[in-house]
Amino acid sequence: MRIGLAQMRVVTNAVNRNVLRVREYMHIAQMQGVDILVCPEMCLTGYFLGDRWECNHLLRATHEAHNSLFADSSAMALVFGSLRVFENAKNEDGRPRKTNAAFVAQNGSNALHFSHPLDCVAKSLSPNYRAFDDSRHFFDSRKWHSELPDTHAHQALLKPFEFTSSNVASRIGITVCEDLWDENYALKPLLLQAPQSDILINISCSPYSDAKETRRRKLLQQAAKATQRPLFYVNCVGTQNIGKTVYGFDGQSLAVAPDGNIVGEGAFFEEQLLIYDVHGGQINPVSQIQMETPTNRTHLTRSALPQKQKALESTLSFVCEEMNIQHCTIGVSGGIDSALSATLFSRVLGPDNLMLVNMPSHYNSQLTRNWAQQLANNLSAPFCEIPIQSAVELTRQQLMETENLANHPRFELSKWVLENVQARDRSARLLAGVAASLRGVFPCNANKAETTVGYSTLYGDQSGFLCPLADLWKFEVYEFAKSYNTLMGHFVIPEGTLNVVPSAELSAEQNIEQGQGDPLVYPYHDHLFRSWVERWERWTPLDVLESYELGTLESDLSIPKGLVRTLFPTSQSFVSDLEKWWSLYSGLAVAKRLQAPPVVSLSRRAFGFDHRETLSGWILTDSLYESIKQRILAKTSFD
Amino acid sequence: MRIGLAQMRVVTNAVNRNVLRVREYMHIAQMQGVDILVCPEMCLTGYFLGDRWECNHLLRATHEAHNSLFADSSAMALVFGSLRVFENAKNEDGRPRKTNAAFVAQNGSNALHFSHPLDCVAKSLSPNYRAFDDSRHFFDSRKWHSELPDTHAHQALLKPFEFTSSNVASRIGITVCEDLWDENYALKPLLLQAPQSDILINISCSPYSDAKETRRRKLLQQAAKATQRPLFYVNCVGTQNIGKTVYGFDGQSLAVAPDGNIVGEGAFFEEQLLIYDVHGGQINPVSQIQMETPTNRTHLTRSALPQKQKALESTLSFVCEEMNIQHCTIGVSGGIDSALSATLFSRVLGPDNLMLVNMPSHYNSQLTRNWAQQLANNLSAPFCEIPIQSAVELTRQQLMETENLANHPRFELSKWVLENVQARDRSARLLAGVAASLRGVFPCNANKAETTVGYSTLYGDQSGFLCPLADLWKFEVYEFAKSYNTLMGHFVIPEGTLNVVPSAELSAEQNIEQGQGDPLVYPYHDHLFRSWVERWERWTPLDVLESYELGTLESDLSIPKGLVRTLFPTSQSFVSDLEKWWSLYSGLAVAKRLQAPPVVSLSRRAFGFDHRETLSGWILTDSLYESIKQRILAKTSFD
Repeated sequence: MRIGLAQMRVVTNAVNRNVLRVREYMHIAQMQGVDILVCPEMCLTGYFLGDRWECNHLLRATHEAHNSLFADSSAMALVFGSLRVFENAKNEDGRPRKTNAAFVAQNGSNALHFSHPLDCVAKSLSPNYRAFDDSRHFFDSRKWHSELPDTHAHQALLKPFEFTSSNVASRIGITVCEDLWDENYALKPLLLQAPQSDILINISCSPYSDAKETRRRKLLQQAAKATQRPLFYVNCVGTQNIGKTVYGFDGQSLAVAPDGNIVGEGAFFEEQLLIYDVHGGQINPVSQIQMETPTNRTHLTRSALPQKQKALESTLSFVCEEMNIQHCTIGVSGGIDSALSATLFSRVLGPDNLMLVNMPSHYNSQLTRNWAQQLANNLSAPFCEIPIQSAVELTRQQLMETENLANHPRFELSKWVLENVQARDRSARLLAGVAASLRGVFPCNANKAETTVGYSTLYGDQSGFLCPLADLWKFEVYEFAKSYNTLMGHFVIPEGTLNVVPSAELSAEQNIEQGQGDPLVYPYHDHLFRSWVERWERWTPLDVLESYELGTLESDLSIPKGLVRTLFPTSQSFVSDLEKWWSLYSGLAVAKRLQAPPVVSLSRRAFGFDHRETLSGWILTDSLYESIKQRILAKTSFD
Repeated sequence: MRIGLAQMRVVTNAVNRNVLRVREYMHIAQMQGVDILVCPEMCLTGYFLGDRWECNHLLRATHEAHNSLFADSSAMALVFGSLRVFENAKNEDGRPRKTNAAFVAQNGSNALHFSHPLDCVAKSLSPNYRAFDDSRHFFDSRKWHSELPDTHAHQALLKPFEFTSSNVASRIGITVCEDLWDENYALKPLLLQAPQSDILINISCSPYSDAKETRRRKLLQQAAKATQRPLFYVNCVGTQNIGKTVYGFDGQSLAVAPDGNIVGEGAFFEEQLLIYDVHGGQINPVSQIQMETPTNRTHLTRSALPQKQKALESTLSFVCEEMNIQHCTIGVSGGIDSALSATLFSRVLGPDNLMLVNMPSHYNSQLTRNWAQQLANNLSAPFCEIPIQSAVELTRQQLMETENLANHPRFELSKWVLENVQARDRSARLLAGVAASLRGVFPCNANKAETTVGYSTLYGDQSGFLCPLADLWKFEVYEFAKSYNTLMGHFVIPEGTLNVVPSAELSAEQNIEQGQGDPLVYPYHDHLFRSWVERWERWTPLDVLESYELGTLESDLSIPKGLVRTLFPTSQSFVSDLEKWWSLYSGLAVAKRLQAPPVVSLSRRAFGFDHRETLSGWILTDSLYESIKQRILAKTSFD
């Protein structure tokens, strides 16, 4: 029997377009003699639609799309993920009941209509972590079971469908995405399904993240071995978002033999049709067909860059295509973040479609100004310089000369106020104006460390249409920059930019020529902040202090031995630094992140709706924290 | 038996403070001879914590708080809502298992420790709509049941606790919040619990919304009648938020007799202790004790204003207190939205703590400028005028005179570009600068109609620390403004402001002296947009066209008969208008909302994280929509 895996691109909410793409795959698969063609989870509508599932129009349009696929199906079975709506039943929110499900179209109709209690195979396990909100919209098979335990036994709900090829009937067990990731659930769908099945298929819509590839491979290998069945996994390609967090979908579909060997794998972020023959439980790869795509992204996915960097480029490329972005203005300071951002957009949109803008005040060194210009030359991108000094001076004067304001007892034009005036002048006045005059956008170049503690100005450097770098720690920004220089064989990102101390250059105290810069010590704070944001059971200063007291902090944070002592000679200085940044992270930075642009997700935990937050500072006053803090402060050192 | 309902204020994440408040209630209740004191759901930590539940520190601090309440309890039973953590079991996200639960502290320990399978009463039903994400963090009793059906029968999990008073044992059935709202769930906790119980108690953390009060009363009356039990309902007071959406909690606790009569009700947005005696199923009110609060809010909750307006004032007042906001700068244009905003903040913070700023360009009429000044006089609030013309001119010049920019083939300083330059100049340059120089904040004055279609400029009038009006349609903005004038007995909000055509005054085409203004026709668009946002099964243009074709649109939208024909003489003009606004609502406006400030929620559906959205336009190309559109356009009129 011949199985085709359609590692297809799915465009959110573009039902017509997605149906057309399924048909293209069907056409090619049929010519290749495929018996069963498998498309990903929710491949008609997309999966991350926010609350659009509440519009009955979407439900009707999806139903119409199914029917057309059912009607046009041939002897080849088409397995695809979509939405099953039960108009006469209610979801727990009182709206029509919706189930995330797998369908089989064959011989002009829904092949599961008479054989399966729900006409489809419902997803059994509902993820409700990170980006996933399944229980908000979908009624899973466990809920069906709890309502009607007799007629909806788990086994019956997971029943395979039968496919006969050359007079041999095979039983194909289908599950949907999370059903495979059953580690923390009482119900184990694959183990229930395997004894009834000859072949197992999982259809997914699973976003890229840094650590996932290895975990996914291992999980599938274990599942194939545990079930002793050939296991096929199909994932989509493209981008989808949950509003504030933007994901790439990397494909990397898999065919795994019952002994756990990976027999085939789809390409990274590329649309492909993968074809395999299965006989007696053995899988033989037949071919791996590249799909035609309107814009060629292979220079992004096949470069010598690290996987994570390719993921960022590919995701950004899909985003720009779907948002119809043709031009990008980028504020370049001569620093590393904006240099990386410019290089990235130059790869994705081409240098001709950029405008790099340097906006000096009298605090900006001639060195950084030169590096900004040099970056533009290296990239062959258009460049201009627009100074902000006169506008900043005008603002200062207007505030000072407005009588009722300047006489007000609370009035003070402090250093901080004037620093933020500069940042807002650059972004909200100039960059936004330049980008609009060129009918394009401008990005926010903040990295993850800055985003964690809100080291940015709202309506200033925190603004933009998207934050492509906000899921990269500062050390990763350097790594990516160096990778580009290596890839291109010369200093695209100027050496000076790579070596200078990071600085916002907003005041005389941030003079880079005197080696002065940001208050963040990235080799330490990157890793401290990471423990607050990315650990699955997230750290707070309590965990940090416990680790500090035990003397294991450096190994727990994976930072060089001796670094903490060097940076913080006393416990008091260590604790003060910790509390200062925690207070920002849980306070003002939340307010900034709530108004920040969407973040491209790359790690296992990105800011945005993957990291849900409330506007309520978390001041550490509980006795657990206080007692350990007092103990630490009582000792002068930990020798 | 004497029951006390602690309608207490809960402050998010302030465990120490909340525990102290519970103790204050305990102290007063004991003096009043209360047998059972009931505190709300999640009253120690707050309920809306985003993903902070992932920090084990929070779990430990909560556990510590419980233990202290258990240890200090007397013969009076203390019922309270909090978090039960099962360290040896896993949640479905792989983190420690957490259950939203009710506890009973009595005689120095956890009174449910030996009698109840989970040591507490777990919430049975998990809401996953609107603001609620219960399944993301909490393992409900239905999941416990599905894992261990034998030992965790629903009845056993909902078992009442026994309280003996004057040698009479009463069985007290406790449920948590959603357990009461069981309409759309297969499991009906109250009906399972009632036969085992003499008295029913529901502890809640239920945000205010416009339509909820009546529904809540009716629901509780029905439940008391259906179970034939006295039913007590306790809700908290204060504010909590889910990041982008800010809620008020209105209290309004209830005591309902078995015949469905409401015997007592807590005050709106005020902290109270409500005391009742229960004998033989009858409830007798004993007293309603007002709690001392640091700032007196009674002038807000007891005014003659409509309920919804009082809810807005109270919520805003809690928000300002918790965010430590002492000063507010407000841009006042002379228009209705900013006038309402200024009046609102003047009520909440006092007029001395405001700075009203008018920022005219040469497009602003002397009329609106005068009204802005007049508003400040009426409110007795400080006022200043800072013109933007010179800065806007500087920006225009800088863009025109930057060679590489002005020569660029894409460069165009269109009318739209210059309108947005003005809006950003006002907010990001001036208002942000003024607010910072006064160590305060500035609000965003956008209403719900503008927010729906993004009729605003990002980093311009879309910016601010909070959107107090973004859950009010334009007609409600007028209603609120008129209520203030009535309340205060004179035109606080100037008559001119109330009567002028709404206009952004950003171009010569928006000249109010010639009666020109916004492209939105609020008496129609308010109601059209409402159907897209607030209907439970949300409308799209498909539903609008179907209703238009049937001739029922005006009644479906609750707008005056004949209005649609007057505004749109042809079907073509009707459809064009519909598609134009829909395209903005589902496209560019989403991008703006994602970067907009948090919204104070008042309706049954506010923007923010109550209305989850994705950055992907929804262009209507499906054949359902196309066919009805063609049919409508084919007819010239519908006589």
